[in-house]
Amino acid sequence: MTDILLLNGPNLNLLGSRETDIYGNSSLKAINNACQEQVESHKFSFQSFQSNSETELIDAIQQAKSDKVRLIVINPAAYTHTSVAMRDALLAVEIPFIEVHLSNPHSREPFRHHSYFSDIALAVIAGFGIDSYRYAIDAAINRLKQN
Amino acid sequence: MTDILLLNGPNLNLLGSRETDIYGNSSLKAINNACQEQVESHKFSFQSFQSNSETELIDAIQQAKSDKVRLIVINPAAYTHTSVAMRDALLAVEIPFIEVHLSNPHSREPFRHHSYFSDIALAVIAGFGIDSYRYAIDAAINRLKQN
Amino acid sequence: MTDILLLNGPNLNLLGSRETDIYGNSSLKAINNACQEQVESHKFSFQSFQSNSETELIDAIQQAKSDKVRLIVINPAAYTHTSVAMRDALLAVEIPFIEVHLSNPHSREPFRHHSYFSDIALAVIAGFGIDSYRYAIDAAINRLKQN
Amino acid sequence: MTDILLLNGPNLNLLGSRETDIYGNSSLKAINNACQEQVESHKFSFQSFQSNSETELIDAIQQAKSDKVRLIVINPAAYTHTSVAMRDALLAVEIPFIEVHLSNPHSREPFRHHSYFSDIALAVIAGFGIDSYRYAIDAAINRLKQN
Amino acid sequence: MTDILLLNGPNLNLLGSRETDIYGNSSLKAINNACQEQVESHKFSFQSFQSNSETELIDAIQQAKSDKVRLIVINPAAYTHTSVAMRDALLAVEIPFIEVHLSNPHSREPFRHHSYFSDIALAVIAGFGIDSYRYAIDAAINRLKQN
Amino acid sequence: MTDILLLNGPNLNLLGSRETDIYGNSSLKAINNACQEQVESHKFSFQSFQSNSETELIDAIQQAKSDKVRLIVINPAAYTHTSVAMRDALLAVEIPFIEVHLSNPHSREPFRHHSYFSDIALAVIAGFGIDSYRYAIDAAINRLKQN
Amino acid sequence: MTDILLLNGPNLNLLGSRETDIYGNSSLKAINNACQEQVESHKFSFQSFQSNSETELIDAIQQAKSDKVRLIVINPAAYTHTSVAMRDALLAVEIPFIEVHLSNPHSREPFRHHSYFSDIALAVIAGFGIDSYRYAIDAAINRLKQN
Amino acid sequence: MTDILLLNGPNLNLLGSRETDIYGNSSLKAINNACQEQVESHKFSFQSFQSNSETELIDAIQQAKSDKVRLIVINPAAYTHTSVAMRDALLAVEIPFIEVHLSNPHSREPFRHHSYFSDIALAVIAGFGIDSYRYAIDAAINRLKQN
Amino acid sequence: MTDILLLNGPNLNLLGSRETDIYGNSSLKAINNACQEQVESHKFSFQSFQSNSETELIDAIQQAKSDKVRLIVINPAAYTHTSVAMRDALLAVEIPFIEVHLSNPHSREPFRHHSYFSDIALAVIAGFGIDSYRYAIDAAINRLKQN
Amino acid sequence: MTDILLLNGPNLNLLGSRETDIYGNSSLKAINNACQEQVESHKFSFQSFQSNSETELIDAIQQAKSDKVRLIVINPAAYTHTSVAMRDALLAVEIPFIEVHLSNPHSREPFRHHSYFSDIALAVIAGFGIDSYRYAIDAAINRLKQN
Amino acid sequence: MTDILLLNGPNLNLLGSRETDIYGNSSLKAINNACQEQVESHKFSFQSFQSNSETELIDAIQQAKSDKVRLIVINPAAYTHTSVAMRDALLAVEIPFIEVHLSNPHSREPFRHHSYFSDIALAVIAGFGIDSYRYAIDAAINRLKQN
Amino acid sequence: MTDILLLNGPNLNLLGSRETDIYGNSSLKAINNACQEQVESHKFSFQSFQSNSETELIDAIQQAKSDKVRLIVINPAAYTHTSVAMRDALLAVEIPFIEVHLSNPHSREPFRHHSYFSDIALAVIAGFGIDSYRYAIDAAINRLKQN
Repeated sequence: MTDILLLNGPNLNLLGSRETDIYGNSSLKAINNACQEQVESHKFSFQSFQSNSETELIDAIQQAKSDKVRLIVINPAAYTHTSVAMRDALLAVEIPFIEVHLSNPHSREPFRHHSYFSDIALAVIAGFGIDSYRYAIDAAINRLKQN
Repeated sequence: MTDILLLNGPNLNLLGSRETDIYGNSSLKAINNACQEQVESHKFSFQSFQSNSETELIDAIQQAKSDKVRLIVINPAAYTHTSVAMRDALLAVEIPFIEVHLSNPHSREPFRHHSYFSDIALAVIAGFGIDSYRYAIDAAINRLKQN
Repeated sequence: MTDILLLNGPNLNLLGSRETDIYGNSSLKAINNACQEQVESHKFSFQSFQSNSETELIDAIQQAKSDKVRLIVINPAAYTHTSVAMRDALLAVEIPFIEVHLSNPHSREPFRHHSYFSDIALAVIAGFGIDSYRYAIDAAINRLKQN
Repeated sequence: MTDILLLNGPNLNLLGSRETDIYGNSSLKAINNACQEQVESHKFSFQSFQSNSETELIDAIQQAKSDKVRLIVINPAAYTHTSVAMRDALLAVEIPFIEVHLSNPHSREPFRHHSYFSDIALAVIAGFGIDSYRYAIDAAINRLKQN
Repeated sequence: MTDILLLNGPNLNLLGSRETDIYGNSSLKAINNACQEQVESHKFSFQSFQSNSETELIDAIQQAKSDKVRLIVINPAAYTHTSVAMRDALLAVEIPFIEVHLSNPHSREPFRHHSYFSDIALAVIAGFGIDSYRYAIDAAINRLKQN
Repeated sequence: MTDILLLNGPNLNLLGSRETDIYGNSSLKAINNACQEQVESHKFSFQSFQSNSETELIDAIQQAKSDKVRLIVINPAAYTHTSVAMRDALLAVEIPFIEVHLSNPHSREPFRHHSYFSDIALAVIAGFGIDSYRYAIDAAINRLKQN
Repeated sequence: MTDILLLNGPNLNLLGSRETDIYGNSSLKAINNACQEQVESHKFSFQSFQSNSETELIDAIQQAKSDKVRLIVINPAAYTHTSVAMRDALLAVEIPFIEVHLSNPHSREPFRHHSYFSDIALAVIAGFGIDSYRYAIDAAINRLKQN
Repeated sequence: MTDILLLNGPNLNLLGSRETDIYGNSSLKAINNACQEQVESHKFSFQSFQSNSETELIDAIQQAKSDKVRLIVINPAAYTHTSVAMRDALLAVEIPFIEVHLSNPHSREPFRHHSYFSDIALAVIAGFGIDSYRYAIDAAINRLKQN
Repeated sequence: MTDILLLNGPNLNLLGSRETDIYGNSSLKAINNACQEQVESHKFSFQSFQSNSETELIDAIQQAKSDKVRLIVINPAAYTHTSVAMRDALLAVEIPFIEVHLSNPHSREPFRHHSYFSDIALAVIAGFGIDSYRYAIDAAINRLKQN
Repeated sequence: MTDILLLNGPNLNLLGSRETDIYGNSSLKAINNACQEQVESHKFSFQSFQSNSETELIDAIQQAKSDKVRLIVINPAAYTHTSVAMRDALLAVEIPFIEVHLSNPHSREPFRHHSYFSDIALAVIAGFGIDSYRYAIDAAINRLKQN
Repeated sequence: MTDILLLNGPNLNLLGSRETDIYGNSSLKAINNACQEQVESHKFSFQSFQSNSETELIDAIQQAKSDKVRLIVINPAAYTHTSVAMRDALLAVEIPFIEVHLSNPHSREPFRHHSYFSDIALAVIAGFGIDSYRYAIDAAINRLKQN
Repeated sequence: MTDILLLNGPNLNLLGSRETDIYGNSSLKAINNACQEQVESHKFSFQSFQSNSETELIDAIQQAKSDKVRLIVINPAAYTHTSVAMRDALLAVEIPFIEVHLSNPHSREPFRHHSYFSDIALAVIAGFGIDSYRYAIDAAINRLKQN
């Protein structure tokens, strides 16, 4: 069983090595470790998963139901703008989620201004680099403590 | 060799356990079995396949050509609204198909009002719950009998 | 008193004699008879009505209320795309209805892709020729049996 | 001189007394105090200002320049969607800023989906209730420490 | 290490057997072989990859970075119009690429007139059948010689 | 001869029996009687007409010319959004008119936000229930007294 | 049996008495007589029909089939912009038709710039006043002579 | 304490002296006095306020809450089309309101056809000149009597 | 001096030799001769001019002013959809004109549905082949006789 | 009494200190002085006013009426794109005005391409820096001399 | 060699004789002379050119490069809204230019609100009649003096 | 007689001297010579023509018919986005053509993303600099050899 699940979408495996002016220097592994530490220090369990595959991300969301995940933190990356299927998976499992972006999509191409996730997310956070994750995890922890 | 192939798209593996007010209580397995029985009672052969993967669905459509499938019944689910690649696969294999939906997408979000499949489908059926499948299979059988 | 009312919109009186490549060879009378037989074999009562007049169709929908009609099957034909007044009549009488089309409007002109009925219909079925009616009637019968 | 300036737009003076299902129970004063404490614990100076007046908010942004404010945290509220003049003030003073929202505008009316601030903000955060402020202030503090 | 990588998207594995009036008679294997010969005759190294999977194509683009690929020739097929994730992969690896199409998408459905790749491509070539590949490979070779 | 003509469009014959949460409990007859009394108490003549037929409403507007009607109060109901022909009839007879709605169309579906009548009406009134009629009649009486 | 049928839509019965600056001084009767004389002088038979009713116009178009009408000249008036049902009737009877307007709709409101008839008409003529009819009838006669 | 509050937006202080062909000859003072008399004759208390300032109007709406205003009659004038902040103030205080316009905005520029208030108003009235106010006040009085 | 000027736009010099299924078999010379005969038989003077050059057509329109042309008949061909400059020339010389098309642009590509001329033309005629010219000339003659 | 009134909108008080690459080095005071000198050298009276407040600008426009201002030169700055209320004030006082911009809004963000003032302005001038004011004042002086 | 080149587009040769209510009474020759005098009084050289031909205007812009023209003042007239080719010529020669209009296009038809020149112009001036030219020339002279 | 005709549109005469970062260093003459050599080495005849004039390009396309040109290679430059008349000329002469661009229009302004030629071209090639021509000529030669 997992309390908080962190999902990362396509190309985020390249973090730290690609376009560092936009995405910063941290590797995904560093982010995952930091989040894990942050969650476990509050005695909650944590899992993380990255995939370039829409399907594997759908599967992970479905699996979250079985794993009794209580809150998902997700950076859908490019799938933010194209994946109705991931939206449907989140609607299906009825697990509340927080949408996270490293950079600010509103200062990029117009097609990045629409998200298939924001209107059904608890909250949306964008542009803080790796701190986007830290705040989302913090909010997730707080929410679990309150429920 | 298969006469009728039933394809189901992403998240339909959760049928019966998710959002039952929208999608009803039947499991996908129950639907597959009912369709199989319906087809085989008319002495036609049947296969069904569900996947959360756009790619596996494309592969299944391509495979249908080799399997000499004569008619496809497909519920593309979320891919209805996003998959040009599945549309292209159906155009490529030139097998006629019927588009099926459990619920009525027209009473949901605006982005669900457009389908990449309807304009090239033989027919479209939506909102009858599992009977959407039954009617589509019935129509498929009738068509095979006529040809 | 009538259990199931079948309504047909403008130009459907020409069925069987017009554009047979699109609409098939059955006459409207044949469709009405087949539906009647189908309904009465399940011990429900049936009525059908066709009109080229938006007003007569509104009147028929209003009359359905007095006749305690329990379910309407309707092919609004061209009024699908233009009649707010028929939509309002259906909303006013609060009788559930199924939208039926002989051909598939999504493979025709763009103005045929919008329906003033689909978002408030129980279900929508298009492209099966006269079988569109048969499936709709079947669904109507099933629904009456369940209630 | 002030390091961090917190600006709040129209109707936020009603916080805690209005639409508590959307905006929560905290008063604006409580938010301001919490932020002040948070900032001062890191030895930075803080000021906050709320106004229902677009003009006073413009003036406050212009004043920030004279006060050598190093970072602005702003919840433009309704002016998010209408005020080019506040956008221009922020462009003019060239002080980096973070856009904050208590609730998630993407799950409300369509006209709330566009912001005149997001594309020029450092970061955007929405939907965490008063924690939206806490995270924004935290990010502001981190940024000041790094520079 | 590879100098030039040729990527082909969904359904292109069917080349030569599907819609030959649109796509011609050459098989994908023939295309790959011709391109390989063309590249190797100039003493550059070559690899090709086709997939129906958006994910595998993303992975291949990411792998190209490790393989020190210097130029990518890509026919994204249906993903041309839907894949922000493949676009992001190309942006991430910062390898210049040429967009290739067998047929001319501008003479097909309106949704095929937009490409997520053209604005960041070096060049775009469409409608020459297999010669689209030959010209793209030729341009790739020339570019490698100049650098 | 008639001074003031009250016209009511489709489905308003159902008033008092349908969707009473939206349209209230008064019958159309009660409304007509109240308006008649109101008009006649000021020594003006009155007539009212309801129809579900666009054509009969056009005819009534044309007849108003012969009857020397001086002002029309009209609730076009669903035809508000679809009838260019009734608009043309009103333009043709050149009788000033007031547009009336029981409920507020702006809080309903987007297609109800456009009226083919408002831009050529003297005035528009919506949302006061039967008092919408009372105010319109009052305004009509005042106008007749002034001319 | 009738060779040429002249159809006139809503409010055209008022011709000569309404908005004469736009529509001129001729009555509809005068137009009908002139057209009849014009047709019969070439030994073809003629009928004319005007209605404010979309339904009666549909019925007249359907009747034209039985009457073996060879060409229809139609001024759909306001229904030009709203009647899919009349379009469908014309498609159904497969009688070629010419679209006629007294005034020039392109110099009026934007909603008059779209016609549901022009794209399937043989020809369109607008703005010549009653001569619009004369030219259309002349063209109809010529066409009948050629066939 | 005040039962009914009348709010008037920008430029309405000029009433009677500006564009009298559009807005009539009454001064704002005359309107306020007439409304006051009308309200007080029914033993309800009344206040009125005009401002050219969006902020002062927001403040007045917020103040209305403290003053236990039971119903607001508001002519937002130009702010009808631009003020999300006033809309938010009305949503925040949860006082029902009636939207009033002297002239008919639908017969003016297209940008005047959209209102940020109509969809959340009890009722909307436009085009009756000063009687727009009289009817709105009458409706307000009736509503207070019923509650 | 010229009474009636006939102008023909780009590619009409090819008439009779190009796309004869669309444009018919008559040469432009034949059309010009027929029009000339038609005009001169009524004792009016006539000139015709064709050009592939927007500029020469503008010059011809300007020259028409000096030549005291009383009416222009113009088939702007492709410039119908693109030439503001020819529109401006016609506005500048203030000579009434009739817009003519051989075929029916409404049954062709969408960009052919807009004309920069129709809203300022006396009349528009399309789809009658060379008779489009004959009717336009006839109307021009009639108009000259009346003035 | 004042002949020419110069109005400047929000953030223009920062001129000379902000974004000097866009707006130049002149202070607003220098501009006001230069304009005053220019006007008074022609024996006309002059006043100038800047405000960040839409309301104060409306008040100034209304006051201009009492001050018998004969021409207004206005740089509405950000309110160019958002203020219907200032437009209405200008319409109300019926004083002709010239719209001025320091920089060229057409080379900036798309939302700066629309002005609520240009269509009712005498003239529009943009991009000349402080000379935009000089030319506008010159034109104002000329106009006063001619009247 | 020429310092300042004045270009005028189609139909401006008619100035002074056409639509004088819009364009005023000055002839183009008078404008050219006035501008020449204005330029030469500052010891700069001047040339002017008008054409109804897009091509000749492109050629003139290209020639300006050879003539070492330092600044172009251009009134593209109707080509403002349609000529990408003239835009490209200006981009190609890299000579800064000022866009001039006699009247105010923003108060005319919507298609006149877009310019292919404004976003790349130094400045835009419209509505001052012939003074539009005088100011543009003045600005050109000033700019030459500064460089 | 000519086998292959190369047409170049406006401003391409400046090639090699203008915006060399976009268009490269080759002169048009060099391109023409290279293409000629390429064509003649395969024993086909060649002609090339450049013009800044839409009309001359139309004339050249029409002349191609007389010259029995078998294939046109055309870079319409700016006319790509505006010339329906050149499109019509190509449709009229029914000579297959290939559309060529030196640079990639998709990475430039949005109005360059639409071509009036692409949907009727054999093929489209953009972004290879002068090699765009080489590939197009090569394809033309191949096509001639096959026919």
